[in-house]
Amino acid sequence: MNFASDNASGVHPAVMAAMAAADDGYVLGYGNDALTQAAQERVREALEAPEAAVFFVTTGTAANAIGLGAAVQPWQRIFCHEDAHIETSECAAPELFTAGAKLTLMPGEGGLIDADALDHAAEFWAGEGLGGGKPGAVSITNSTEWGRVWMPETLGEIAAVARQHGLVFHMDGARFANAVAGSSQAPADITHRAGVDLLSFGGTKNGAMGAEAIVAFDPAIAERMAYMRKRGGHLWSKHRYLAAQFYALLEGDLWLQLAGHANAMATRLSAGLAQVDGARLLQPVESNQVFVTLPGDADDRARAAGANYYKWTSLGEASADEVTLRFVCSWNTREAEIEALIAALQG
Amino acid sequence: MNFASDNASGVHPAVMAAMAAADDGYVLGYGNDALTQAAQERVREALEAPEAAVFFVTTGTAANAIGLGAAVQPWQRIFCHEDAHIETSECAAPELFTAGAKLTLMPGEGGLIDADALDHAAEFWAGEGLGGGKPGAVSITNSTEWGRVWMPETLGEIAAVARQHGLVFHMDGARFANAVAGSSQAPADITHRAGVDLLSFGGTKNGAMGAEAIVAFDPAIAERMAYMRKRGGHLWSKHRYLAAQFYALLEGDLWLQLAGHANAMATRLSAGLAQVDGARLLQPVESNQVFVTLPGDADDRARAAGANYYKWTSLGEASADEVTLRFVCSWNTREAEIEALIAALQG
Amino acid sequence: MNFASDNASGVHPAVMAAMAAADDGYVLGYGNDALTQAAQERVREALEAPEAAVFFVTTGTAANAIGLGAAVQPWQRIFCHEDAHIETSECAAPELFTAGAKLTLMPGEGGLIDADALDHAAEFWAGEGLGGGKPGAVSITNSTEWGRVWMPETLGEIAAVARQHGLVFHMDGARFANAVAGSSQAPADITHRAGVDLLSFGGTKNGAMGAEAIVAFDPAIAERMAYMRKRGGHLWSKHRYLAAQFYALLEGDLWLQLAGHANAMATRLSAGLAQVDGARLLQPVESNQVFVTLPGDADDRARAAGANYYKWTSLGEASADEVTLRFVCSWNTREAEIEALIAALQG
Amino acid sequence: MNFASDNASGVHPAVMAAMAAADDGYVLGYGNDALTQAAQERVREALEAPEAAVFFVTTGTAANAIGLGAAVQPWQRIFCHEDAHIETSECAAPELFTAGAKLTLMPGEGGLIDADALDHAAEFWAGEGLGGGKPGAVSITNSTEWGRVWMPETLGEIAAVARQHGLVFHMDGARFANAVAGSSQAPADITHRAGVDLLSFGGTKNGAMGAEAIVAFDPAIAERMAYMRKRGGHLWSKHRYLAAQFYALLEGDLWLQLAGHANAMATRLSAGLAQVDGARLLQPVESNQVFVTLPGDADDRARAAGANYYKWTSLGEASADEVTLRFVCSWNTREAEIEALIAALQG
Repeated sequence: MNFASDNASGVHPAVMAAMAAADDGYVLGYGNDALTQAAQERVREALEAPEAAVFFVTTGTAANAIGLGAAVQPWQRIFCHEDAHIETSECAAPELFTAGAKLTLMPGEGGLIDADALDHAAEFWAGEGLGGGKPGAVSITNSTEWGRVWMPETLGEIAAVARQHGLVFHMDGARFANAVAGSSQAPADITHRAGVDLLSFGGTKNGAMGAEAIVAFDPAIAERMAYMRKRGGHLWSKHRYLAAQFYALLEGDLWLQLAGHANAMATRLSAGLAQVDGARLLQPVESNQVFVTLPGDADDRARAAGANYYKWTSLGEASADEVTLRFVCSWNTREAEIEALIAALQG
Repeated sequence: MNFASDNASGVHPAVMAAMAAADDGYVLGYGNDALTQAAQERVREALEAPEAAVFFVTTGTAANAIGLGAAVQPWQRIFCHEDAHIETSECAAPELFTAGAKLTLMPGEGGLIDADALDHAAEFWAGEGLGGGKPGAVSITNSTEWGRVWMPETLGEIAAVARQHGLVFHMDGARFANAVAGSSQAPADITHRAGVDLLSFGGTKNGAMGAEAIVAFDPAIAERMAYMRKRGGHLWSKHRYLAAQFYALLEGDLWLQLAGHANAMATRLSAGLAQVDGARLLQPVESNQVFVTLPGDADDRARAAGANYYKWTSLGEASADEVTLRFVCSWNTREAEIEALIAALQG
Repeated sequence: MNFASDNASGVHPAVMAAMAAADDGYVLGYGNDALTQAAQERVREALEAPEAAVFFVTTGTAANAIGLGAAVQPWQRIFCHEDAHIETSECAAPELFTAGAKLTLMPGEGGLIDADALDHAAEFWAGEGLGGGKPGAVSITNSTEWGRVWMPETLGEIAAVARQHGLVFHMDGARFANAVAGSSQAPADITHRAGVDLLSFGGTKNGAMGAEAIVAFDPAIAERMAYMRKRGGHLWSKHRYLAAQFYALLEGDLWLQLAGHANAMATRLSAGLAQVDGARLLQPVESNQVFVTLPGDADDRARAAGANYYKWTSLGEASADEVTLRFVCSWNTREAEIEALIAALQG
Repeated sequence: MNFASDNASGVHPAVMAAMAAADDGYVLGYGNDALTQAAQERVREALEAPEAAVFFVTTGTAANAIGLGAAVQPWQRIFCHEDAHIETSECAAPELFTAGAKLTLMPGEGGLIDADALDHAAEFWAGEGLGGGKPGAVSITNSTEWGRVWMPETLGEIAAVARQHGLVFHMDGARFANAVAGSSQAPADITHRAGVDLLSFGGTKNGAMGAEAIVAFDPAIAERMAYMRKRGGHLWSKHRYLAAQFYALLEGDLWLQLAGHANAMATRLSAGLAQVDGARLLQPVESNQVFVTLPGDADDRARAAGANYYKWTSLGEASADEVTLRFVCSWNTREAEIEALIAALQG
């Protein structure tokens, strides 16, 4: 029973098969191959963005850092949620690739940046002198670090602020597939049609081995990105194996099936938690992550039953005899695992 | 009537005289001269820190950035107040010199970091994995951006947290002289004896032309600092003229007389404000800065009378017909200016 | 007929099989898994270095840049050959990860740094002031960019200079397996026993998909390296698939068999080139790369026959009707390809 | 007798007087003052460049690093002479401010870059892939580190290569005044009219205290430069004192008188050296620096007589009983010093 992370799951068989199939004879390296071009094309089609520039890398941190590095200047501010992965979990990779741009932290329920707060902050820093560091970009995460999903309406509020203040609008989509599945929206409608300029389109948490696409809807930024990827050490020589992963995930709607399954498992889990005495969901369950506060003995029973998951420390805390937990479902979570977990929690 | 900033005042005559006197024949450059050594010695004496390493630079931003750059690693976090100069006014210079370390913002009344919040944050980030970025340093400003002064007791609380979590304890003393004068403490008692490791000892706002001393109480860091200063372009060739400024300020207790005067003028001003209808001090006046909310027409009258000062925009705001203003007094503020300002405000 | 690069070859079946086999159930991410530990242990055994710290990444550029980034300060110089990959082909990645350290270029036949020139340069820069940038590391490539192999004796000369001047001794082993096979030396004898501190141990060009091990023989540097890898975006979440590649290559002596085959093919090719009119080898063939100057029509015939390889532009040039070519053999170069290439060149 | 460096001389009385005169009442900081604007205007007039953007800083290293940092991308190469100050004496400041751009070293007699070598190198790196790092700028020093002066014709050759390859053309003019005086050319004719885009216009070595102007002939780069200066900690608050120095130097033709004197003293010295047995000039004397190889006993005699100067270590060397020396003349070198030095050397 694994609910620790969606990256604790392995590689989907179709992805592994595509990687093995890519292994056919000599192919020029560094992305100058037909499979890479085909995979890039599938990304463009999935996003209905025929002009987009697409770069593959192997980690979400690389995707975010390279994208932001190409988009902002060192003296600019990147506005993001105070719980954003780029702030809490990337060891200052954005600072490395931007040569020292600041992340300015925004509040907001469930990892969703409050648009008014963003407007206020962008207004404030635009009005300060040279020393303040000028507004440069806003980065949101979709689905968020708290499992919430951005909808066209809320995205539109952020986009309006971004437009108003000339901010590049970046979306960290490490769990983009879960967001698409959770929102029942077209990928285009929650990205470029909603004003997003730059997308980290995650594959790794959704059945790939290590594959993320950096998508620039405005291809003018592509040249900077190419250099950024190279000097970050992120341009694969045997690039076809990286491309193969996206090629397989985007075959038909496999990527959305996998994410839809993960989301459905999380919904199933949240329904079960309603039956557990003392359980309180911290957030509505909109994708594949469930955050819940529970009595400590429920936690003990689930651990004893062999379940893996993380206690969710944060700057705030539950009461003394309670614990806050995160359960993450993935493309290969089985319904039986959900049932076993709920049973253990119920005692 | 200037209350815009203490750096709008000129150079004290004794400082200018010392610079002119330094102009005597050939002297080896880059700090290899007798006057530099004498000035460094005076800094050590003023701080009762015979082992300290002392480096002169010409701006406060350089002093902070070089000091912090020598003290922390790029994957560490520097905890500072959310209104700290290093966050709001240095255009990401600390990020440049640390190669991308993060500033993590702390709350606290009047620019004084809340020690419990610091403890909580350091504890949290120490417990996170590689991605979180490890606690590296705490930087406080003394006197603060809101004119408040740290006392040995509150300093001791920060020092205890710093010790507990292995943080380098940095003090931005752009207005250190005002803090010493305002606290009536020995310089040593509010720095190394209180646990401070690293001090930006400001001269520019206190009558120098452009002179700040970076003081490392633990000289082990000195070698890193020497390289940092050089590659930042901050090692003066005609170094004697930089040293001369500190040499003159630390002659007798000139630096404390000047700061004491500035503080006294601010106290005088705050007393006068008590007579202005609708005036509310935002902070106790402990050094040379006065923050006050006033009716808009008082502001209009003072401007009409020729007073210079800044409206103090911040993320929070006063009501519609009020304004928040900052008045800064300096070494050459005259009592007549204070009286004229108060008279204008009173109407 | 591919002789363009050893990274144009695919993944060895045993490596692919190990990756597929790793795909078994839930495994904690970021290297906290048994397969990663087993693969690290195999690296240590292959190098007879039980205390070494081992970090896996997916590109050679990342391996070099992270290793050097952990080893030197921004104000230090890294001495390397003027044709070193870190200078010519990594888009300033070492400068990114070292925060701006300089590469200082050394001459030497066939990519082998001249030890006297190194000694002279290290002596010179050690004697300069702060502004010069202090000697920090020497980086050699083994096998070199010109296919030459370092032997214990020549390594010892570099090591002596490194020791004398306190330089970290780094080896870019993107083709380390070819060097081991070509030198008929134990891996330990051409690394730590010869004074090497830090090794980029390449897998990608030798049958892996994208796998390089950064090996620090002195584990004191390991903590810096862990942070460097993370903030570079190079820590894989599904780390077992990266580890599996080294695990498979180091099963028995597969890695040396593969490299030995590539080297033997290059030797076979060089023998054939002796039969081509006007062909002149630029370098002795000691590993899997062959550099040759040929009449232009031989080049035309080989291209017409379908051979892939690069014209080797460099700062020097051949005469007008000649071309300089590089042929690279790999683990899956077939003898029939060699024969077909030679036949085409002979015309 | 000082011939160690022109920065061992003090501040010219007119400069000191202007600084003292600037000390008049309250003035807004950070360059928002009338004296700064007047000094900027004088720089534009001296250069006949009415549109140029002018930024003052206090060190030559800052001027070069900020200028280059605003002009190039981290993945570009800056071509410079192998003896260029930016390579040998600035502790990797250009790498800090460019976020890691490479300096690529060019040969050339007397510090004058060979235009053919530059063309060849730019052509080569333009033709390499992403990994090579693209040609970005060429930086020359005028007068050079060997005291040579660029003339319109040789400048034109560099400019032609720069134009051909899209390079920003930067001139390190730490001794620009000496170059103007030595070339008998109009300042405009050896800068923007000769194709120079960016100039570090030095004041410090020519009688200022610490004042250099960064001049961008194309003002499009000005915004980047303003941020670069700020985040480097190089924006002075009491900016009028920095501006005053240039204001004084450019009053009439004081700056050219001072440099002309220094040059004349060097010419006088070189004439005297012709009378010293065994003396060989290493370079024609075209500005204020004299490089000479002499018998060791002449050196001993001059030291004994109290002369200060540097032995000039370099990668090449004189014979065992000879020494290579550098003598630098400055605005306040007296003819009697020259005579005393020559007398001592003659013995």
